[in-house]
Amino acid sequence: MTDLLPRLSARELNDLLHNAFPLVPPGLFCVETVEPMRVRVRMRRLEEHIRPGGTLSGPALFTLADTALYMVVLAMCGPVLEAVTSEMTIHYLRRPAARDAIGEATLLRLSRRSAVGEVLIRVADEPTPVAHAVGTYTLPKQEFAGQNRR
Amino acid sequence: MTDLLPRLSARELNDLLHNAFPLVPPGLFCVETVEPMRVRVRMRRLEEHIRPGGTLSGPALFTLADTALYMVVLAMCGPVLEAVTSEMTIHYLRRPAARDAIGEATLLRLSRRSAVGEVLIRVADEPTPVAHAVGTYTLPKQEFAGQNRR
Amino acid sequence: MTDLLPRLSARELNDLLHNAFPLVPPGLFCVETVEPMRVRVRMRRLEEHIRPGGTLSGPALFTLADTALYMVVLAMCGPVLEAVTSEMTIHYLRRPAARDAIGEATLLRLSRRSAVGEVLIRVADEPTPVAHAVGTYTLPKQEFAGQNRR
Amino acid sequence: MTDLLPRLSARELNDLLHNAFPLVPPGLFCVETVEPMRVRVRMRRLEEHIRPGGTLSGPALFTLADTALYMVVLAMCGPVLEAVTSEMTIHYLRRPAARDAIGEATLLRLSRRSAVGEVLIRVADEPTPVAHAVGTYTLPKQEFAGQNRR
Repeated sequence: MTDLLPRLSARELNDLLHNAFPLVPPGLFCVETVEPMRVRVRMRRLEEHIRPGGTLSGPALFTLADTALYMVVLAMCGPVLEAVTSEMTIHYLRRPAARDAIGEATLLRLSRRSAVGEVLIRVADEPTPVAHAVGTYTLPKQEFAGQNRR
Repeated sequence: MTDLLPRLSARELNDLLHNAFPLVPPGLFCVETVEPMRVRVRMRRLEEHIRPGGTLSGPALFTLADTALYMVVLAMCGPVLEAVTSEMTIHYLRRPAARDAIGEATLLRLSRRSAVGEVLIRVADEPTPVAHAVGTYTLPKQEFAGQNRR
Repeated sequence: MTDLLPRLSARELNDLLHNAFPLVPPGLFCVETVEPMRVRVRMRRLEEHIRPGGTLSGPALFTLADTALYMVVLAMCGPVLEAVTSEMTIHYLRRPAARDAIGEATLLRLSRRSAVGEVLIRVADEPTPVAHAVGTYTLPKQEFAGQNRR
Repeated sequence: MTDLLPRLSARELNDLLHNAFPLVPPGLFCVETVEPMRVRVRMRRLEEHIRPGGTLSGPALFTLADTALYMVVLAMCGPVLEAVTSEMTIHYLRRPAARDAIGEATLLRLSRRSAVGEVLIRVADEPTPVAHAVGTYTLPKQEFAGQNRR
């Protein structure tokens, strides 16, 4: 399935993210790389994400997982902004240091109606993952040439 | 298992929540009722939770689920602030109107090492659920008289 | 949503189950009751489901959860045999005694394209649940009058 | 974490599996390879796993996921037969052809009390995954030198 090419670049994704969610603090998320079926998204460390003991909050990591999955869906399908999460499972693996967090999202399946993907999350400058998520996005009806969806 | 009595009241839980997470906007969450193995938590509608189309964001609902589950764990175990989410699964059921959201968290199991519970989420003034979550909290070693944990 | 009436009876569901899965041991599953958005299914204790220590195997409980969810989907939608599980999460709560197991499946959402439901599992003659599952069935295109799907 | 070495070989795991679950059809599962934090397990195609249309049943794939995760836990921890699944999430990605199925299980975290891992499932002679699972095993108290658990 990795023969499918992304339809949007990192720059286009960052623009979409900024315009689609004007209330999200600008610069909170940044799409860093886009590959076939995979994107890397960085979430800047925010004071409000830090829990006592100097660790990132669980819901903050979930937000990163959800955003990274949304970004890989848009990267492969084009600007289907109406795509919505239908379900997500997150496992917390280790206490994350209070740094920027990085989510690598990979699509496991892309069909006309939905996309399933997983996200591995780590913090900046550390290789071991701190969380893993897997979930489904439901895609809107296809009104455009979405040749990547089967 | 419903013969176990809560060890903390709604008022005590709200105080704990406020003191433990000073960075959470004050008044964002409010524990409304506490029963054996069950609490109800309200999340005030915040502008930053609202997505285009006038709906609450998925991560905001996840945050409510996580908080409500934490509150029912504390209600039954006492102030084990070190309890941490180990995993959570959320299903989004319907588009939530942009109102206050209400999470009803129920413990399905409470043991010495962990607690499993589910959360049903709806928005104010509507009975149909908009999301369902189920997850596990890992409990710290028992250093106090936690007679509710088996 | 509980104003929707089931379209199939327990007897019709048992016939469907028997005919659709001829390789499932006859009598392994029995739909006992059907209510709006809810069914109760019994799984007969089989020797091959019993693990050392006299407990039911985890995969056996998963099979019951999957079957009970399928049955409530069919009860509400009619004989959409092509409905398939798209994802399922199961939590094991307590060691189940090696008896018949009973799954109560409830639909949390029923739309045209999918159904989300949860299943609470206990063993015969014991009220406390031994497992909880939640998952999604994807529904085939509607070629018949499926007025319960919205 | 991949500096941890397996404590059991494929042959030892197959012996354990056979002795621990005498009721599982002999030869149904076979551990094929063992690497640090990873095992590959093959599930032989059984007539009773085949659903109408020539596809493997969902619960059969779940059973493979559960077994593969158990095998990687035992591979890394030694013969902790009392390890039990506490929860598991499975996503079905594509219709699996009715062949042998192969599960690649990888541990994402291994601590003293629990292990979290994921399993990618495909069918023989096809590279694309048909299912993905992620779940947790709870480990018994350590009565032996389990130096791989932290």
